[in-house]
Amino acid sequence: MQNNPLITLTSDFGYKDPSVGMMKGVILSINPLAKVIDITHGITPHNIKEAALTIGMSHSFFPPKTVHVVVVDPGVGSSRRPILVITDHAYFIGPDNGVFSLIYNSKNETLKVIHLTSEHYFMPGKGPTFHGRDIFSPAAAWLTKGIESANFGEAITDYVTLKFPSASRPEEKAVEGEVIYIDRFGNAITNITALDLNMLYGVNPEGKLKIIIKERHTELRSHYSQVQDKGLYALINSTEYLELFTYKGNASSVFDIKVGDIVRVILSAQ
Amino acid sequence: MQNNPLITLTSDFGYKDPSVGMMKGVILSINPLAKVIDITHGITPHNIKEAALTIGMSHSFFPPKTVHVVVVDPGVGSSRRPILVITDHAYFIGPDNGVFSLIYNSKNETLKVIHLTSEHYFMPGKGPTFHGRDIFSPAAAWLTKGIESANFGEAITDYVTLKFPSASRPEEKAVEGEVIYIDRFGNAITNITALDLNMLYGVNPEGKLKIIIKERHTELRSHYSQVQDKGLYALINSTEYLELFTYKGNASSVFDIKVGDIVRVILSAQ
Amino acid sequence: MQNNPLITLTSDFGYKDPSVGMMKGVILSINPLAKVIDITHGITPHNIKEAALTIGMSHSFFPPKTVHVVVVDPGVGSSRRPILVITDHAYFIGPDNGVFSLIYNSKNETLKVIHLTSEHYFMPGKGPTFHGRDIFSPAAAWLTKGIESANFGEAITDYVTLKFPSASRPEEKAVEGEVIYIDRFGNAITNITALDLNMLYGVNPEGKLKIIIKERHTELRSHYSQVQDKGLYALINSTEYLELFTYKGNASSVFDIKVGDIVRVILSAQ
Repeated sequence: MQNNPLITLTSDFGYKDPSVGMMKGVILSINPLAKVIDITHGITPHNIKEAALTIGMSHSFFPPKTVHVVVVDPGVGSSRRPILVITDHAYFIGPDNGVFSLIYNSKNETLKVIHLTSEHYFMPGKGPTFHGRDIFSPAAAWLTKGIESANFGEAITDYVTLKFPSASRPEEKAVEGEVIYIDRFGNAITNITALDLNMLYGVNPEGKLKIIIKERHTELRSHYSQVQDKGLYALINSTEYLELFTYKGNASSVFDIKVGDIVRVILSAQ
Repeated sequence: MQNNPLITLTSDFGYKDPSVGMMKGVILSINPLAKVIDITHGITPHNIKEAALTIGMSHSFFPPKTVHVVVVDPGVGSSRRPILVITDHAYFIGPDNGVFSLIYNSKNETLKVIHLTSEHYFMPGKGPTFHGRDIFSPAAAWLTKGIESANFGEAITDYVTLKFPSASRPEEKAVEGEVIYIDRFGNAITNITALDLNMLYGVNPEGKLKIIIKERHTELRSHYSQVQDKGLYALINSTEYLELFTYKGNASSVFDIKVGDIVRVILSAQ
Repeated sequence: MQNNPLITLTSDFGYKDPSVGMMKGVILSINPLAKVIDITHGITPHNIKEAALTIGMSHSFFPPKTVHVVVVDPGVGSSRRPILVITDHAYFIGPDNGVFSLIYNSKNETLKVIHLTSEHYFMPGKGPTFHGRDIFSPAAAWLTKGIESANFGEAITDYVTLKFPSASRPEEKAVEGEVIYIDRFGNAITNITALDLNMLYGVNPEGKLKIIIKERHTELRSHYSQVQDKGLYALINSTEYLELFTYKGNASSVFDIKVGDIVRVILSAQ
């Protein structure tokens, strides 16, 4: 039995249907001491990559041994496998559809990936359409009760990893990436990291760089309210990615920026 | 005092106003050990039937003795009674407006329905417009503290039960029902159950049946990704109801399916 | 260490991004025993006044010593200060941008306001764009662990207080105010309080008053379902403010009522 057992939930179930409530009921029926925390249930329906990004950005903020359940699962009921991913920091449970791609590539070492097959730890006699409730939630709850991971099934090595576009370096002194996520405020997060920029331009690159998106040129700032006009600016955000924003406005809608738009960073002329 | 006291909340309060937060504050002020779980606060405003369906589908997944608070309550402040429903599995607290209709008709026996009248267990001196905060939440919290249900008021037997349409059998070998809920993904859930189909057509009826909605004919599948074209299909869903769906798409908007639409199941010609 | 440590969260982060999940992870990493309750994350982006109203209406329903974290923070990263407000009832942590204006003016005495400067209690080495995660959440968690408030920084007295419009008395027997919030149901909450009306017209003023908004005249009722036509009515709501509503309808959209609209209460002719 874990002390202070903690389970997080991430899904595309939204906030209207009772699906998430059912999952919590199942978890607490097995381990009444578990604390269940929502990361989000607002993933765009069926968007596996968005879920992968979300759990990829979030997991490191949770305590060791947290069990993260992710349910964005358009192939539920098919032959895609339910899995448990064990890293040197935490546990991840969900479908083997690539939703854990950024976990496999994170700083935390992936120690083992287990194909969940022990029906003993599933909800008995349930149909094939809601593995979040019938397989992932009970497995997570049993894990926090101290069941050894080896009891859940056999280790596998051929788990699915999605390709995420990474920033490239088309020229000696240029970085090219793309917008990968638009957040609630309309900020456009790119796949260009602080590290990408630091390797090319040294630390504190502000002032040295020009950021280009859709033929629009802008510059780097350190925080959202540093300039208070209605222009488009960029900063390194709280997850260390290059992000485009406009002060107290919705950059995505004002400047028509979408996921997939190309972003280029070059040295400014000065 | 219950061990691991658990209270769930279901309402039409949405996710913007502080109403739900206030209810949780009231509960935790009375019983700081209670765990409060949201089933949903996204019920369509004033839609009592939708709330009845939601709690009807969800309650069985929670541990015994869970206290379920449901607040969809357009008649708050009028003479409609606040009630506590006690079944052989759980407790339910809310308005006597039919919101517990499917609890009265569930597999769990309704042992008693109590009209909540003991103001002793209410918030003192509050107005007539927010019983969720001032009556239902404190009553739920006191119940988890071990107050005997008889202390809350007198048993009643004339509680309100709403008629839910149930599937009918217009011909020897046909079942007719209707769409009762559109979920977040646009799936259309009907009131035709797996049991309805099994009684008429035996187990594993896939392949034998034709499903007709709005002059459109379709067939039964076992899970969402079994066919990956953009057509309309049906399956038995995770709460054992017949459901219409389209793979990775929104069946309700693509095929213009609404709550109340008639669905007919017949033997296919084969 | 507090018994049953309780932290609430209020923000404009919405329900799609993982920001709130990250904050909870940070809190539970520091104090695994903390209970974290969402008041709402649906504040309109950057709307400091709406957040001030929300926490102002909610905090009194929570147990003593609750730590309320509020993150509506368009100036994050600038010189605006992170603060801890201590009242005789509870703690409040967030930006010094006026978000606690109604706390300073509440029935609870503000004992001290502390400028959070002890980086020792922040997340180490983080950037300037997400104080909710990197400063406010850890400070809240450490506070529930029993760290003395004086350890977080120096007391200040020049904290920011926003002016909220209050009801005025343009004539001997009239009160004038304005709509300050539209809730999920479309009810229009004004800044005219029960106390304002009682002082002018005595207790139980129903029947004696005429309420005027946009040249439309209406009357006071005691609860939402007292009249069941589709007209516009007013009542004293559960937070003791004058509120305009229509039975089972959306008064704001049907009668085109917006935040800022002027509302006047006079004696009716009788």
